[in-house]
Amino acid sequence: MRDVAIIGVGATKFGDLWENSFRSIGIEAGMKAIADANLSGREIDGLYIGNMSAGRFINQKHIDALIADYSGMATNHISAVRVEAGGASGGVAFGQAVMAVASGLHNTVLVGGAEKMTDQDDVSINTAMDETADSEWEAGMGLTLVSLYAMIARRMIYEGTATREEIASVAVNSHFHGALNEGAQFRKEVPLETVLRSGPVADPLGMFDCAPISDGAAAVVLCPLKEAKKHTDSYVKVSAFAQGSDTLALSQRPDITRFGATVAASKRAYEMAGITPADISVAEIHDDFSVAGIMALQDLGFCKKGEAGKVFLSGQTKVGAGKLAVNTSGGLKARGYPIGAAGVAQIVEIATQLRGKADKRQVANARYGLAQSVGGTGSAVTVSILEAV
Amino acid sequence: MRDVAIIGVGATKFGDLWENSFRSIGIEAGMKAIADANLSGREIDGLYIGNMSAGRFINQKHIDALIADYSGMATNHISAVRVEAGGASGGVAFGQAVMAVASGLHNTVLVGGAEKMTDQDDVSINTAMDETADSEWEAGMGLTLVSLYAMIARRMIYEGTATREEIASVAVNSHFHGALNEGAQFRKEVPLETVLRSGPVADPLGMFDCAPISDGAAAVVLCPLKEAKKHTDSYVKVSAFAQGSDTLALSQRPDITRFGATVAASKRAYEMAGITPADISVAEIHDDFSVAGIMALQDLGFCKKGEAGKVFLSGQTKVGAGKLAVNTSGGLKARGYPIGAAGVAQIVEIATQLRGKADKRQVANARYGLAQSVGGTGSAVTVSILEAV
Repeated sequence: MRDVAIIGVGATKFGDLWENSFRSIGIEAGMKAIADANLSGREIDGLYIGNMSAGRFINQKHIDALIADYSGMATNHISAVRVEAGGASGGVAFGQAVMAVASGLHNTVLVGGAEKMTDQDDVSINTAMDETADSEWEAGMGLTLVSLYAMIARRMIYEGTATREEIASVAVNSHFHGALNEGAQFRKEVPLETVLRSGPVADPLGMFDCAPISDGAAAVVLCPLKEAKKHTDSYVKVSAFAQGSDTLALSQRPDITRFGATVAASKRAYEMAGITPADISVAEIHDDFSVAGIMALQDLGFCKKGEAGKVFLSGQTKVGAGKLAVNTSGGLKARGYPIGAAGVAQIVEIATQLRGKADKRQVANARYGLAQSVGGTGSAVTVSILEAV
Repeated sequence: MRDVAIIGVGATKFGDLWENSFRSIGIEAGMKAIADANLSGREIDGLYIGNMSAGRFINQKHIDALIADYSGMATNHISAVRVEAGGASGGVAFGQAVMAVASGLHNTVLVGGAEKMTDQDDVSINTAMDETADSEWEAGMGLTLVSLYAMIARRMIYEGTATREEIASVAVNSHFHGALNEGAQFRKEVPLETVLRSGPVADPLGMFDCAPISDGAAAVVLCPLKEAKKHTDSYVKVSAFAQGSDTLALSQRPDITRFGATVAASKRAYEMAGITPADISVAEIHDDFSVAGIMALQDLGFCKKGEAGKVFLSGQTKVGAGKLAVNTSGGLKARGYPIGAAGVAQIVEIATQLRGKADKRQVANARYGLAQSVGGTGSAVTVSILEAV
């Protein structure tokens, strides 16, 4: 298995991109990443796309061919693959692309994620989200994705492993960083009070506990680590990628306040990279709902059960404040959550940090960074570890 | 890159499976393949799923987790990945699974394809099919997938590279073999006259030129070639896998009577396997519409442009009749076309042939077999070459 490097990254602004089509944002992110890698499109020999719902949103499946076509790469008939895993679509696409280079089947691969959501009506958006839960035993019974996460939050509060304030502080952390990121959808700090008083969505979660509806795309270029220097002086090593699954329905789990898939995937990833959680300086975690941030920090081994809320509430996760900076991009909550793009955008952020190009939100002396992407209620989780070289 | 072997195969019957759910057919095929490989589910460490439209058909995305869950594998939190590439979904899933084992990231992988279509209404089915064409420039303008293939047929007839009778004979060949396959949806030979006189769908194509709406699932188990003997005496080597893309819209191609993605992918695959088309004894090709069979034989290098129709009409492609037997399973036309399952079902058939277990439709002394899977109008094509060992 060959070692793999990230040699270029690119992303659109996240937010309401009403002037742009799904096609155009996918191409914009891809072209930025290719230019950042000092390549032309002709040197790419494999394409991976993470996308959740273009079938439902714009009646377009076969996004693989669409992006190959509109980026001009279809003229070379390159291999193009679309993967879908709900909210983890981008994370899974990244993993498949890493495997493609590691195996030797491809050499220079572009992996992108894209979603165009703000021009959809609420029914379409909610149906698409709920399809990532269990359609027979959850969504079909009237459960929505946010209500499932609300039950997790309710259970944590009942068990005493997190307070309402601690859960809300995950959103405060993401907004703190979003204010520092020019590409973020919401560039505004938000006090804890605002999160606590925001309109209820599914009790106890309010509007500010939920990541927004967004448009956006992100992309990275991969090649064998040995060849990275040929293209750029500023590259990052992919030290590990691992993925885990879990029951589709939350009700089938022995404990709903932890994601077994995160625990399993992160264990495999740490082992593959030969490190422990203490070696990580910067992490992008999947805060589609604030309560997911609490679980992430615990399930990834950064702290014990019942401690993550205290860590967030104390402000230690803000850049410069502690040993581990979390969601320096603004996370899903403040950077924005164009679903299929999210997992790739996390990789863009971690690579940017490890290259020392994160500007106002730069974490000092980071050697290792981690990204965690989640589909449904933890039914699919990817964990990637990147290393500065 | 490690060599990869197929050590187990399984499939449901294809057809109207009204007594079964999407979940149950996926599990049935998977369990058959695992049992055929003399394994238990616990030994599988990676899962790949090809599925086109469960999101639209049963409001269920995240099929990766669904299958991991219902097969009991989610308790181990194994990695599970769903890919989608229209009609090539199963073929692409197979390719990703091969890569997973070849790279060393996974060791024993189950790859399955499944689709449940017969309980859908016509609008849902047609929308799902048309989403694999270009939604903005084709489907959005009223073009359907069958009408795009009808244009290809019309053009061939105009150019004189195939006659109406030759095109129809592709369906005759598939039905000849379907009659010999107990798992096929249509087990009845069909004379040329019946195809020619079948009700028009999109002129010149009639009902018997079109693959049916089907339910079904298929699965295979992969492991490193070196370890295959530990599990079974009856295994097959994966000699090559390659994939190609093309413009999403047919109108953007210089020549609509050939699929550049098939040409490119097959060239790469022959090179990878170190063989020529003449070495192949049995091929499964993507005859979703009869005219696609004509293109396939030509684009895969089995004969020159204008000759494939004559080959089919002469009956040389029937088992025992010539050097190359085509669609011995009955193909998409007679075996059935549960979309996401089709590409995996082709692999099941070729592996069964090379293991000498194809019963009444057995091809004698076959060393190499090929499978070609197509998405949309050739916007994604996979070509796999298997070898008897």
